[in-house]
Amino acid sequence: MSTEALLTTLDLVGIFVFALSGASAAVAKKLDVFGVVVLGLVAATGGGAMRDVLLGATPPLVLSDWRYLVVPAVAAALTFYFHPQLAKLRRLVLLSDAAGLGLFVVAGTTKALDAGVAPLGACVVGMLTGIGGGLLRDVLLGEIPVVLRREIYAVAALLGAIVVVVSERTGVDSVGSAVAAAALVCGLRVVSLLRKWSAPTPRGVGTDGRGAPR
Amino acid sequence: MSTEALLTTLDLVGIFVFALSGASAAVAKKLDVFGVVVLGLVAATGGGAMRDVLLGATPPLVLSDWRYLVVPAVAAALTFYFHPQLAKLRRLVLLSDAAGLGLFVVAGTTKALDAGVAPLGACVVGMLTGIGGGLLRDVLLGEIPVVLRREIYAVAALLGAIVVVVSERTGVDSVGSAVAAAALVCGLRVVSLLRKWSAPTPRGVGTDGRGAPR
Amino acid sequence: MSTEALLTTLDLVGIFVFALSGASAAVAKKLDVFGVVVLGLVAATGGGAMRDVLLGATPPLVLSDWRYLVVPAVAAALTFYFHPQLAKLRRLVLLSDAAGLGLFVVAGTTKALDAGVAPLGACVVGMLTGIGGGLLRDVLLGEIPVVLRREIYAVAALLGAIVVVVSERTGVDSVGSAVAAAALVCGLRVVSLLRKWSAPTPRGVGTDGRGAPR
Repeated sequence: MSTEALLTTLDLVGIFVFALSGASAAVAKKLDVFGVVVLGLVAATGGGAMRDVLLGATPPLVLSDWRYLVVPAVAAALTFYFHPQLAKLRRLVLLSDAAGLGLFVVAGTTKALDAGVAPLGACVVGMLTGIGGGLLRDVLLGEIPVVLRREIYAVAALLGAIVVVVSERTGVDSVGSAVAAAALVCGLRVVSLLRKWSAPTPRGVGTDGRGAPR
Repeated sequence: MSTEALLTTLDLVGIFVFALSGASAAVAKKLDVFGVVVLGLVAATGGGAMRDVLLGATPPLVLSDWRYLVVPAVAAALTFYFHPQLAKLRRLVLLSDAAGLGLFVVAGTTKALDAGVAPLGACVVGMLTGIGGGLLRDVLLGEIPVVLRREIYAVAALLGAIVVVVSERTGVDSVGSAVAAAALVCGLRVVSLLRKWSAPTPRGVGTDGRGAPR
Repeated sequence: MSTEALLTTLDLVGIFVFALSGASAAVAKKLDVFGVVVLGLVAATGGGAMRDVLLGATPPLVLSDWRYLVVPAVAAALTFYFHPQLAKLRRLVLLSDAAGLGLFVVAGTTKALDAGVAPLGACVVGMLTGIGGGLLRDVLLGEIPVVLRREIYAVAALLGAIVVVVSERTGVDSVGSAVAAAALVCGLRVVSLLRKWSAPTPRGVGTDGRGAPR
């Protein structure tokens, strides 16, 4: 398998698991089958679409390559019919989601740098590629986005983006550093889930019991 | 009247009724007159603006042609002042909305194909042109978008988009097939309203009483 | 200081105070430190990013100039740690916010006219530059955007945009009219706060007690 084929495969795996997360959230909100598929598509492709629109790379990749639509649609349909079984695979889904996040962040940051975006802007684009689908998913479901409320999710994404930018600026080998950045994001995310880490919340305003503040 | 003038007229009729729907929702939420006008504008022009941004056709049509702003603003102002009377025209508004949906879907899909978007992507753009304004309207009002929750709305939009793409690929006469696709969307939507059809909801998670599941 | 340096400085001041408003809203919702920073960034740069995406000026300015990211991030971090003290500066923050609104509207309308957008479309772009960040802030926090619900906020933005467009069309001196338009927006906003003005709400649907209807 060539490097590019490998990257595309990994990208589609990320899209598959992100679609599972969007569709599961839609099932929990009792949306109909169409709503479940739309939420799956949005969660899987929203971050990449935001990235492409911000970079002026229109039409976005998701509209030009049919696999970026069929894969999440299939994942969402599977979720619709098999969500009780899927609940038992929660650990596997969370792990895949962490891996997908790492991949999306690295791909988004790299694409932004290639498009000539400044380093700090590229970090924002990379982070948004990773968390944008989840943001749209939660907004469509009428929730405050979970990535803004708790857990080391967006922070992991941002750190991964910084690693990509720094390694590109210092001329470090790009394939190795990309793998390292993706592994960092995925690892941080998994460890924060295991340890129930959360970012600090403001003092003096109490907690709403939804995060895991210390 | 030339074909183009006819199409523009139909488009503006669609924008007018979509603005009525957005403004009515804003009135129900007790927004002030400005909020009512903004919601009318968003519901009427949001789908087309999303389409143009995704296709890179910026600035979007709504910003270049004053009629695309004045018509929905007038519709929203009328709704603000005459909403009690408008409630009596509910059937007419729903019918016009169905017609507007058909028109928007056909126009959006055709524009995406003309811009060189792949077939499946063009279906997504066409559907989004039809339902995007309603999505934004509901998100701004803090609701889960109604098109994701119930009724054959987005499904009708998707089927219409598929008809446009298939007829374009198979070289069928484009005017006739466009009319057929718009009629299909409108007809499906009207029949689903009359019959209270809904798409299936997930098994095992109960219903929230807002749809009409069977 | 040159005119351009002055304009950039004023722009960054506007971004700073808009970030305070976004971060304060996030603190009130008990988001974690990362969520507070993201909300600050979104409130400060969302309107400008919408403007640039609609005008096809991608990547948006916020991604190319690091100051447009560092300034709101610092403002949000300050808000996170010093929000109790910030509450005492409420009047100053509201005044700065009014000034920021005036500046954003004038800058957005001017940029749209320069990009060849039609007059009415330029008014919409200018208004959206001013209120877009607040819209996104409230949507991410699961609220109906406050600018749609009460107070002369968006109306002031729209009037300012109209002044810019009219003065550009009639060939009036642009620097003087830009200052006048920004002052009009800021003044209207401040007076409406002092007098508790609100735009009219629909008759016959009651009030929700959140605005200040007459």
